[in-house]
Amino acid sequence: MAVAKAGGRPPGRAQYDLASLLAVAVDVFIERGYDGTSMEDLARATGITKSSIYHHIDSKEQLLRLALDRSLGALFAVTEEDGAHTGRAIERLDYLVGRVVEVLAAELPYVTLLLRVRGNTETERWALERRREFDRIVRGLVAEAAGDGDLRPDVDPAIAERLVFGMINSITEWYRPGRVEVDELRRTVVAIASTGLAKAATGDR
Amino acid sequence: MAVAKAGGRPPGRAQYDLASLLAVAVDVFIERGYDGTSMEDLARATGITKSSIYHHIDSKEQLLRLALDRSLGALFAVTEEDGAHTGRAIERLDYLVGRVVEVLAAELPYVTLLLRVRGNTETERWALERRREFDRIVRGLVAEAAGDGDLRPDVDPAIAERLVFGMINSITEWYRPGRVEVDELRRTVVAIASTGLAKAATGDR
Repeated sequence: MAVAKAGGRPPGRAQYDLASLLAVAVDVFIERGYDGTSMEDLARATGITKSSIYHHIDSKEQLLRLALDRSLGALFAVTEEDGAHTGRAIERLDYLVGRVVEVLAAELPYVTLLLRVRGNTETERWALERRREFDRIVRGLVAEAAGDGDLRPDVDPAIAERLVFGMINSITEWYRPGRVEVDELRRTVVAIASTGLAKAATGDR
Repeated sequence: MAVAKAGGRPPGRAQYDLASLLAVAVDVFIERGYDGTSMEDLARATGITKSSIYHHIDSKEQLLRLALDRSLGALFAVTEEDGAHTGRAIERLDYLVGRVVEVLAAELPYVTLLLRVRGNTETERWALERRREFDRIVRGLVAEAAGDGDLRPDVDPAIAERLVFGMINSITEWYRPGRVEVDELRRTVVAIASTGLAKAATGDR
């Protein structure tokens, strides 16, 4: 974590930039829940005073918004990549699934927080709406792949989409960087999702 | 919900049996969190007094234990069924995966509560230990299927097991009885898990 100690300050009085403050805040939000976190909790976790925190941000909700914007931004960026626009729908879907796993691993606490949003504040409702927008993009791809005849006909695309993204989201429950290589995780998810859903796999067993 | 109103009582003063009390308590535990639920909350949700609740149980933790015992009991019962002991390991695994989906749908609030246990009380630690025991049974089956050469060789069985059960557990986030037929849900999960992991599916795409 990029915490720069300023010379001459008492030990333990770290000076934070906004990115480091955000990283600590997200950890506290995940541990205590956003509603259960006070500015005092954030001051304690960072070791800086509330007024130092207010030097960076106007409110606790602004921290939440920055955190959720980071994970949503990373997820939506994937939909703009070449791989998400190249080839058949099922290939674009495979690409998207794999890249979402990579984003999840790279932005683990931010995506974890995003998945816990329940809609109690305006910021959370905004994040839920953005998540629904992302889901619509994915569902569109699944429907297109089904229309191309590339999905197994015995599986309902909407249920399959929920299950595959439920599988991906569940990674936040156990994944810790370093324990499993991201590349292997991505490969395994794509293998299960892709061969599990693709038409070619039907009737093998 | 089997709430029998006793004749002559004031309206709204329902008389509860233990099963109905438990059902209401589980809903409140899920909504407020177990730690955040007081006996007052349970009295309010049931419409009966705290002393009426204490007529059935000794403590809030006893309600939690009964609830977790119900979901764990249903899950472990599956491991005793014929289908969990018949055929090759991969067939037994398919059977177990399908039956766990059915148990999840049939005991939705109880399994949802089980998945939220974090280990703050002795009862929660007991439930976590039982969950680990169940996971060991599943991992044993996955390892056996891998040993039989029935799993795709390019996928790590331990990661695959986490992903498949992550997918199953994620069902509690969105499934509501009646919106999707249990049988279709079970079929879809088994299709994704089975063809996604089975050796026969390798190399198709």
